[in-house]
Amino acid sequence: MMRVIADFCLVPIGIGVSVSREVAACERVLAEAGLKTNLHAYGTNIEGEWDDVFAAIKRCHEVVHAMGAPRISSTLRFGTRTDRPQTMEEKIRSVSEKADTGS
Amino acid sequence: MMRVIADFCLVPIGIGVSVSREVAACERVLAEAGLKTNLHAYGTNIEGEWDDVFAAIKRCHEVVHAMGAPRISSTLRFGTRTDRPQTMEEKIRSVSEKADTGS
Amino acid sequence: MMRVIADFCLVPIGIGVSVSREVAACERVLAEAGLKTNLHAYGTNIEGEWDDVFAAIKRCHEVVHAMGAPRISSTLRFGTRTDRPQTMEEKIRSVSEKADTGS
Amino acid sequence: MMRVIADFCLVPIGIGVSVSREVAACERVLAEAGLKTNLHAYGTNIEGEWDDVFAAIKRCHEVVHAMGAPRISSTLRFGTRTDRPQTMEEKIRSVSEKADTGS
Repeated sequence: MMRVIADFCLVPIGIGVSVSREVAACERVLAEAGLKTNLHAYGTNIEGEWDDVFAAIKRCHEVVHAMGAPRISSTLRFGTRTDRPQTMEEKIRSVSEKADTGS
Repeated sequence: MMRVIADFCLVPIGIGVSVSREVAACERVLAEAGLKTNLHAYGTNIEGEWDDVFAAIKRCHEVVHAMGAPRISSTLRFGTRTDRPQTMEEKIRSVSEKADTGS
Repeated sequence: MMRVIADFCLVPIGIGVSVSREVAACERVLAEAGLKTNLHAYGTNIEGEWDDVFAAIKRCHEVVHAMGAPRISSTLRFGTRTDRPQTMEEKIRSVSEKADTGS
Repeated sequence: MMRVIADFCLVPIGIGVSVSREVAACERVLAEAGLKTNLHAYGTNIEGEWDDVFAAIKRCHEVVHAMGAPRISSTLRFGTRTDRPQTMEEKIRSVSEKADTGS
């Protein structure tokens, strides 16, 4: 088992200037997969087991192609660690605390 | 003038396993630059004029090197559009609405 | 079946400033997986079937953790298309020809 | 002065499925800026002084919008180091040698 925190941004190409319908479909795919997610202004944070996260990302490509997009270009950041468990909330908290105090 | 919405993730290399002190310093740099930002679990959304955003990102590299990091590897997504103005909030809202209704 | 062209960059964290030994181990993992690859100065192009490409990327994280890296932060660009097949060589050629002629 | 090695991938949105004409225009922008570059199958390596590299990337967005793309989504990896100078060729060589010998 390998836990991953990822950040996923999918860009459909060849369907016009608006891509929010396709990105929304991906949100539903990720939610249906039971993954912990957080949508932000340039992607979606995803936390879960490696195989679950990557299966859902594959499903996003399949669904967006099925919606009519001939081409997709996605980007992903993804991190794993073996020293200790970590959650998305904790990553944000550990930065926020230090940013506030200037330490 | 060219407005940009960006997503920035800086990784200091060669300072050990914890990098939150350096990431927090970047948060302060971005805030001091007067940019609209939103910290998430794998980066920070930034909205502003192109030159302001990229000057702040350069400053982040300078500050993190000055803190002792010999090496930095960053990633950035950045989008511009000429058809109409767009904010970070609106990007999220347009996806969230469609995800909720399934439209 | 879904063919993917990807660009993978793995950054081990917490092992010091030099990361080339770990990146080299990934090159061997990708080669052993029989994938078509091309190493460049900031990552590696990979072409293959979706499941093969992502299985090899998972293996890279496992191998680099086993080498002693407590933390890994990777980035990936990945593209799929349904309108027609495309290879890495053809992507480069189609840009190079247009760049040369200015068309 | 701060030297940077970057990897740039620009995706025009809203102009159809083929984007090679716009990517080729960026290649010319980078070449005209006198930057050292290397086109690969999913982006372009760029090496140079920070301000020169980022001025050229801004020019790419301006040129591609002027060609008619209403929207652009780009991704960038970029690395700086203060411990010693490094070139694109050396980054590739240091990995390739270790990959060959398995050391």
